[in-house]
Amino acid sequence: MIGDYAAKPEKLVIGLMSGTSLDGVDAAVVRIAGFGPDTKADLVRFYSRPYDDILRERLKRLCTREHSDVSQVCAMNFYMAELFADAAREAASEAGISLADIDLVASHGQTVWHIPADDPADEFGPRSTLQIGDLSVLAKLTGRLTVGDFRPADIAVGGQGAPLTPYGDYILFRSETVGRVVQNVGGIGNCAVLPAGGGPESVFAFDTGPGNMLIDQVVYSLSEGRLIYDEGGRWAREGRADEALLGELMRHPYFSQEPPKTTGRELFGPAYARAFMDRAREQGLGDADIVATATAFTARTIARGYRDFVFPRCAVGEVIITGGGAHNRTLLEMLSGLLPEQRVTNSRALGYDDDAKEAMIFAILGNDFMHGIANNLPSATGASRPTVMGKLALPW
Amino acid sequence: MIGDYAAKPEKLVIGLMSGTSLDGVDAAVVRIAGFGPDTKADLVRFYSRPYDDILRERLKRLCTREHSDVSQVCAMNFYMAELFADAAREAASEAGISLADIDLVASHGQTVWHIPADDPADEFGPRSTLQIGDLSVLAKLTGRLTVGDFRPADIAVGGQGAPLTPYGDYILFRSETVGRVVQNVGGIGNCAVLPAGGGPESVFAFDTGPGNMLIDQVVYSLSEGRLIYDEGGRWAREGRADEALLGELMRHPYFSQEPPKTTGRELFGPAYARAFMDRAREQGLGDADIVATATAFTARTIARGYRDFVFPRCAVGEVIITGGGAHNRTLLEMLSGLLPEQRVTNSRALGYDDDAKEAMIFAILGNDFMHGIANNLPSATGASRPTVMGKLALPW
Repeated sequence: MIGDYAAKPEKLVIGLMSGTSLDGVDAAVVRIAGFGPDTKADLVRFYSRPYDDILRERLKRLCTREHSDVSQVCAMNFYMAELFADAAREAASEAGISLADIDLVASHGQTVWHIPADDPADEFGPRSTLQIGDLSVLAKLTGRLTVGDFRPADIAVGGQGAPLTPYGDYILFRSETVGRVVQNVGGIGNCAVLPAGGGPESVFAFDTGPGNMLIDQVVYSLSEGRLIYDEGGRWAREGRADEALLGELMRHPYFSQEPPKTTGRELFGPAYARAFMDRAREQGLGDADIVATATAFTARTIARGYRDFVFPRCAVGEVIITGGGAHNRTLLEMLSGLLPEQRVTNSRALGYDDDAKEAMIFAILGNDFMHGIANNLPSATGASRPTVMGKLALPW
Repeated sequence: MIGDYAAKPEKLVIGLMSGTSLDGVDAAVVRIAGFGPDTKADLVRFYSRPYDDILRERLKRLCTREHSDVSQVCAMNFYMAELFADAAREAASEAGISLADIDLVASHGQTVWHIPADDPADEFGPRSTLQIGDLSVLAKLTGRLTVGDFRPADIAVGGQGAPLTPYGDYILFRSETVGRVVQNVGGIGNCAVLPAGGGPESVFAFDTGPGNMLIDQVVYSLSEGRLIYDEGGRWAREGRADEALLGELMRHPYFSQEPPKTTGRELFGPAYARAFMDRAREQGLGDADIVATATAFTARTIARGYRDFVFPRCAVGEVIITGGGAHNRTLLEMLSGLLPEQRVTNSRALGYDDDAKEAMIFAILGNDFMHGIANNLPSATGASRPTVMGKLALPW
C-alpha cells in the first residue's frame, strides 16, 4: 500500500491546514515529485473555507481550560475530521478532479492545546501538544490514504513540535547562489533563514515578534469593529510613524533575546495592544499615525531580528514575505526601506501563492512520511535528531 | 517499511491493553504468523502493570466532564504513551528479549470518553470515541513500528467502535466441528458466538449483562472494603442463592431486549448494587447468601442470553469463559449447572491465558493493519462494511 504510493513518480496530494487563529481550513492540491530535500511541489489549486461564527466560538471555548472537557475533545476530534474531509472534497472539485485522483491527504489538524515545557510541579504535565481531526475518520470519509498529526513525533525526540514550516521553506525557497530569509507574517512574525547552498541542517528559524497581531487589533479598535485588518496597508500609508514611541516599543526585552525563541499571544496579545493604544493617545497621535506606528513596529522588529541574529551568521540577498502580511504593501515598503541591501519580495514573485504555502508544506510533510523520510528540522525545533513525523490511516 | 514487515513469515508483536476499569496496562508478547482469519498467534509472555492510586485518581477525573479539561487530555495523551512504552519494554525484558527483537507494538490506548450515538440536540456532538496514549510518542520511545487507536475507524464506517474482541475470539477459538461461545466476564459480561465452521461474518456478539461488576461491589461493601473481589468464588460457595430475589432481578428489561445490545455502568453500576443490597437485607439474607445470589444472577443472565438469543440461531457445544470471571470457580460451576448440554471451560483449557487474551487480540489487530487487512467485524460492531482499523506511527 505504502509501496504503491512511493513507486509513483508523481503524486497528487491535498495538504490541509487550520491555524491557531481559528479562522478556517486551507486545502492545497499539490503535485509532488520526489521526496525529502529534493521534493518538487507545484500548487494545482488552493481552496480556503472560513469557519462560521458558531464553530469558531466552539473552538475558542475548547481551547481554554475553563470551558473545555473531555467529552468535547472526543466529539470535536470527529467533527473537525468531517469538516476537513469536506474541505478536501471541495478542493479536489475546484481543481476539476475527483477525490479518487488524489494519492494522499495530509492534515495538520486543529491545534487545541500546546504545553511548551514539562511542568516541574506536575509529573502528569509533560511537554505535549494536541491537534484534533481524527485521521481514521478523514481517511474513511475521503477514501484516500491519510497522514497527519505531525507535531507529537518531534516532541517525542526532544523538540518543541514547532516550527514545522522552515523545513518546507527550505524545499520551496532555497537557492544555491543567494541567501534567503522567508518571513512569515501571520499573527506572529517568524523567519526561516536559508543560507545559500546550505543543507537542511544549515536552516535556522525564530519568531521575530508581533506580525499582524498588533496591527489588526489596533485597526479593529480604531474602526470600532468595522475593519479586522488594514487592507493593503492603506490606512498606515495615510499616517506617519512616531519615532519616540517606536523607540520605547523596541526596548521590549524579547527583541534582544537570543534565538531560538518563540512568542505568542501571551506577550503581544490584547493587553499589549491596549497599553500601546493608551500610550499613543498620550502622545497625541491621530488614528492613521497609530496604524502607521504599529505597522512600522512590525517592520522594525523584523529588521532588527535580522541585523542582530541573522546577518552576522549568514549572507542574505533576498527576504520573502509570506502569510497575510504579504498583502500589506505599506509593511513591505517599510521593510524594503529598513533593509536596503536586500531584495524584499513576496512568495508570489517566486511562483508560490502566499496563502497556500502552509497547506502546501503539510502536503510535503505527508509525502515524506510515505517515503519513510525524516521531515522535521532539528535546527528549527530543537529536536535531538531528524525523525519521521506523522501517523498513517488507511481508507479501506 | 510496511513491506518488510509483511514479508516476514513470523513476527513478534507486543499487544498493549488498558481497560475502562482503569486498573492497569496489560502487555502480551505474541508470536504471529499469517494474517486475517488465518492468523496463528502464540503467547510468548504476559506482563501486567497496575496503575498506582495517584494515576488511577487522575484518570478517573479525566474520564468525567466535571473534572477534565483540554490541557489534561493533551498532557495525559503523552504521559500514558510513556507509560505504555515502559510496559512494552518490561514485557520484552520478561520474555528474555530486547525491544529491538520486536517487529510491532500494537496499542489499544486508554479510553477516556465514548459517545455511543449522535447527539440530536448538538451538531457538534457526533458519535465518537477517544483513546489516549499518543502513537508517535510510543513509536519513538520503543523504537518500533507502532499501530493503535483502532476504534475511530469502525465508527467512521457506521459502527459502534465496539466490541472489537469478537474478531480475535473468532481467530483464537473458532472450530470447524463445534459451535462455541466465548464469554468474557469483566465488569460487564459479553459473549461472542462462533458457529461451527462459520466465516467471520457468521460471528455475532452482545453484552449479556453484569459480569463481575455486581459481585465485586457486593463483596467490597460486605467486607467493608477489605476485599475487592470474591477470590475463586469462595465466599459465594459458602452461601445459597435466593430464588425469589433472583426471579425479581431477572425481570430487568435489559435481559429480554434483542441483540445487538450493550450495557455498562449506567445500568448495573453502584446505584444498582445499593438497591440490590437493600432488597437482599429486606429478605433477611446473610452475607454469604447475598454473594451467592449476586454470583448466581450473573450466571443466570448469561445462560438466559444464550437460551433466548444464541441457541435458537446456532448450535453450541462449548462455552469458554475468559476475563477475571474465569477465575471464579463457583460462577463456572453455576454456569455448568445451567447449561448441562454444553461443556463450560476457561480459555486456559484451550491453550490461551485468560488474562492475556485481550492484549493478544490487539496484537492481532495491529498485525492485520500492517497487512492492509480489515480487522473489524461488522456483525459485532454494526459497521456498514469491513474496514482496516488503526493508525501507524514510525520509529525512525
